[in-house]
Amino acid sequence: MMKESNTTTRRKFIKGSSILAAGIAATPLMSFTNEVVLPDTTDNIYLVGPQKGYSPQIGTLLSTMTMMRAWVIRTVKDLTIEQLDFQIDEQSNSIGAMLLHLAATERYYQLNTFDEIPWGKWDEDIKKEWDIASGLGKKGREIIKGNPINYYLQTLKEVREITKKEFAKRDDSWIMKSEPFFSNQPTNNYAKWFHVCEHESNHRGQIKFIIKRLPT
Amino acid sequence: MMKESNTTTRRKFIKGSSILAAGIAATPLMSFTNEVVLPDTTDNIYLVGPQKGYSPQIGTLLSTMTMMRAWVIRTVKDLTIEQLDFQIDEQSNSIGAMLLHLAATERYYQLNTFDEIPWGKWDEDIKKEWDIASGLGKKGREIIKGNPINYYLQTLKEVREITKKEFAKRDDSWIMKSEPFFSNQPTNNYAKWFHVCEHESNHRGQIKFIIKRLPT
Repeated sequence: MMKESNTTTRRKFIKGSSILAAGIAATPLMSFTNEVVLPDTTDNIYLVGPQKGYSPQIGTLLSTMTMMRAWVIRTVKDLTIEQLDFQIDEQSNSIGAMLLHLAATERYYQLNTFDEIPWGKWDEDIKKEWDIASGLGKKGREIIKGNPINYYLQTLKEVREITKKEFAKRDDSWIMKSEPFFSNQPTNNYAKWFHVCEHESNHRGQIKFIIKRLPT
Repeated sequence: MMKESNTTTRRKFIKGSSILAAGIAATPLMSFTNEVVLPDTTDNIYLVGPQKGYSPQIGTLLSTMTMMRAWVIRTVKDLTIEQLDFQIDEQSNSIGAMLLHLAATERYYQLNTFDEIPWGKWDEDIKKEWDIASGLGKKGREIIKGNPINYYLQTLKEVREITKKEFAKRDDSWIMKSEPFFSNQPTNNYAKWFHVCEHESNHRGQIKFIIKRLPT
């Protein structure tokens, strides 16, 4: 069943036993190679898997977040300020507001999972900066407007850089760490960050729905 | 930095070297435990990670798909036939059509990644069964209607059972296998199945948008 990968950049198959004999089993990518040939997935957004500089599970999670983010950017990168501010109806969120909402969500999950701050117990200055984008709704409609696409993409990028820096400091024991969270059930950090990722797709679906209906 | 997990069911820390000494390094969950304490994430949808009976990466991917699916089901489970058939405008897809579209998408990725059939080259009987749900649009609007929620949920469940059965037969070399696919770039099976997963969130975002606007 196992076939050669079509990827050009690949790592040599190394038996786990020989890795351990060589005493380098602790390096992130190696902890997979006792089973299979691993392509180096770092340089291509469609090769989801362990990433250089991250533990195996964290690297794989990050690669899904990178792929998802690339699709969000591709969907919105050419929108004008008017299109980013467009309201499809009085209860809808603009595309711009949704993009800032994605950044706010990622920021809050950073505080919750990296700084271990209980959800919503952020400092006042953090709330001032992010609560409106996090909450969306009426206030978001009033305040989040008039910004060019680069403002939203730059904000998303800056927040993502923090995520990557903090991911790199942690290992797979952290990503598996859990507390009662979603539906008050045990929820590990992987589940929280998977949500941050799929949440971008959730809003991208709404953004595509709105783009199809933009005034021409 | 490493703290105790809150999860009740946990596995003992075993050094990779001793695993290999014991000659059981090939069992799926073990290939992670040379680094960290792994909670058993199989019994809780919010503990994303390796799953019993699946290779480490496949189990982790499946656990994200299971969490995502639970949120889709929670969003639609109480909708009536009229609500499932509702069209928000003449170019929109009904919630029912989107649910069948998710099943069709998963079926096609099964054929592409498990049976290695080039995209779209399915047998005629497969196309007859799934092309309308896959394509949505006008034909979907005409044909996919009048079904209760259980019809859609049962179809999604049956397709997912095939995915789980096939995932269980494969290992992490398969999930890392790639071919030119998205944007004609090297795309591994993990990226394809991550798309199947985030695609459910994409449509869940649209489903929630429509639910907020259902006629009362």
